Amino acid sequence: MKFICLQENLKKGLNIVEKIVGKNLTLPILSNILLETDKNQLKISATDLEIGISYWCPGKIEKEGSITCPARLLTEFINNLPNEKVLFEGKNNILEIKCKNYKTKINSESSKDFPLIPKIKEEKFININQKILKNSLNQVVKITSLSDLKPEISGISLITKDKSLKLAATDSFRLAEKTIKELKDFKNINDLAIIIPARTILEVIRILEEKDEEFVSIAFEASQIMFKISNIKLVSRLIEGEFPSYSQIIPKDFKTELILDREEFINNIKIASLFSPKNNDIHLRIINKEGLEIISQDSQKGENKSLLKGDLKGEDLEISFNWRYIQDALSLINTPEIFLGLNDESTPGVLKPVGDQSYIHLIMPIKN
Amino acid sequence: MKFICLQENLKKGLNIVEKIVGKNLTLPILSNILLETDKNQLKISATDLEIGISYWCPGKIEKEGSITCPARLLTEFINNLPNEKVLFEGKNNILEIKCKNYKTKINSESSKDFPLIPKIKEEKFININQKILKNSLNQVVKITSLSDLKPEISGISLITKDKSLKLAATDSFRLAEKTIKELKDFKNINDLAIIIPARTILEVIRILEEKDEEFVSIAFEASQIMFKISNIKLVSRLIEGEFPSYSQIIPKDFKTELILDREEFINNIKIASLFSPKNNDIHLRIINKEGLEIISQDSQKGENKSLLKGDLKGEDLEISFNWRYIQDALSLINTPEIFLGLNDESTPGVLKPVGDQSYIHLIMPIKN
Repeated sequence: MKFICLQENLKKGLNIVEKIVGKNLTLPILSNILLETDKNQLKISATDLEIGISYWCPGKIEKEGSITCPARLLTEFINNLPNEKVLFEGKNNILEIKCKNYKTKINSESSKDFPLIPKIKEEKFININQKILKNSLNQVVKITSLSDLKPEISGISLITKDKSLKLAATDSFRLAEKTIKELKDFKNINDLAIIIPARTILEVIRILEEKDEEFVSIAFEASQIMFKISNIKLVSRLIEGEFPSYSQIIPKDFKTELILDREEFINNIKIASLFSPKNNDIHLRIINKEGLEIISQDSQKGENKSLLKGDLKGEDLEISFNWRYIQDALSLINTPEIFLGLNDESTPGVLKPVGDQSYIHLIMPIKN
Repeated sequence: MKFICLQENLKKGLNIVEKIVGKNLTLPILSNILLETDKNQLKISATDLEIGISYWCPGKIEKEGSITCPARLLTEFINNLPNEKVLFEGKNNILEIKCKNYKTKINSESSKDFPLIPKIKEEKFININQKILKNSLNQVVKITSLSDLKPEISGISLITKDKSLKLAATDSFRLAEKTIKELKDFKNINDLAIIIPARTILEVIRILEEKDEEFVSIAFEASQIMFKISNIKLVSRLIEGEFPSYSQIIPKDFKTELILDREEFINNIKIASLFSPKNNDIHLRIINKEGLEIISQDSQKGENKSLLKGDLKGEDLEISFNWRYIQDALSLINTPEIFLGLNDESTPGVLKPVGDQSYIHLIMPIKN
């Protein structure tokens, strides 16, 4: 194989693809990247057998072919080259690279042992604005369960219904749900209910750009999903099993309702956390005439009390939460004001952005 | 004790002082910070028994006294408070803090067990511009030896002579020397030769600001040194022993001389490093008609060659270096052009900034 392309295009592609590459001692070829000529482009691919990714890089093909070489070494090398034309030539398991005043040989391997990345038919698919998808995935992926014991909650649930899309995640202590109605195309999709691994979602978030005009296409097959983002294709397996049905645990009405300033709430929680005991317990005391008092105490460290003013409605209440869960929820809601809805000290609290019905975040209280 | 001061002043002081605090399991009070009223100011101190530091914070004293409390907790707490007046009151081993809508109690201890920080007489001292001192210390401290086996090279050597100051460091593979002539005051100092621990220097660098007008005063006693930087005093023990006498190993003349572009040299070394074997060996081949060829090769990875043009004088030469040492040297020299002087493949190479006689950096070659 022989081809020429610009350093900056190669750099972009390698840095996207290389992130998938992990250390795999039983199958060392997985730490390689596959370079192959594909029509008039250079296709750069990597896989860890769960996720496969390909990037098409423009350039000039002088001789068709393919080769595979260590991903980290090639990426670091290309990253440090000047932004000039780079000439690649692969033969006899050596990849020769010339660029300006550099002449390099990288020990490589034949591509015949490189695992195939599945091809997904683009028959059933949805098109979504990149920025909307990126923000939506960010709002749920953080609270997926990290444990392998319950694989069905180690990913995010994607459900389609009435031409809208619901994303949800839970770690059984909290739950987040995001609804997306702004879908561009919705082809051959009936009621779909799948679970996408959290790691796949994190990779997709990394690749998605925050450009308003750009769209991503998501194609579905029985046990696979493909995200097509401009000149990138990411294919992932899905998680088998059934995501817990959660709609009945979301409270519809609240005995106590608060509207709080987000920044102030974040600061007060942060300070309270410094004095909370090992179980991360902080105590909220809602007193309608005064505000929200946040109390934390630890026999070793001391104690802290703060009072947060806000718009309060309903009954007085005392309830305890894990401060990390509140902090996470507040980091995922971007509106200047936050709605907090409560019922009693043993049912979940609900956080929502004020003025945005598309997102809901539930947190189980700590029972004392 | 009882005093009031502004959050931003406290925050600044605590963040400077707190860095000295380490975990000390045999003497837990060392993880505390000492707060004491001192005339009309609040003095904040910490020590690890090798370095002691105090910061004077302006405020209003309502009742004299002192108390000591956990450094990290107090610092994190103050960092997160709003920039308002903070009221401190210490009694019965509790430090009560009030600020805006926060009320806090921190479990504290009596100051009577807090170790004394030595007081240094300001009789023998030098005054130096902060920015010059900071840059000079940065140019030598990085190459002090990390090993405890030779304590005399685990710090930097400070020698005064003819109203100038020489700083030097070595790890026995390389050596850096910086001469400072711009001294403001030079009081009661004759030929001084001391060794300052590298950690002390790193703390001083952290505190020094890059303001052109500000001066630092360095006072000397038999086995102690004090840096006075505006409202901060840092006292440190010195290292006993004698720094190796190095002047005779610095070559005065060179058979081969090169003037190289710094940025290009850095890039070429970086790329060469990717293909160097485990001992970090890279090979320089100086060919007068062509330039500096940098070659690295590893049986596993492959090989790289690059050619760097420059101003070359003298004999052709081949020599090998540890690329990390060249990279470090180039990171410590800021001029756009670098002088590289060589004699043969077994004597040290010399790197110097072009147009600045105050700095010299020696590196031993790798013998093949």
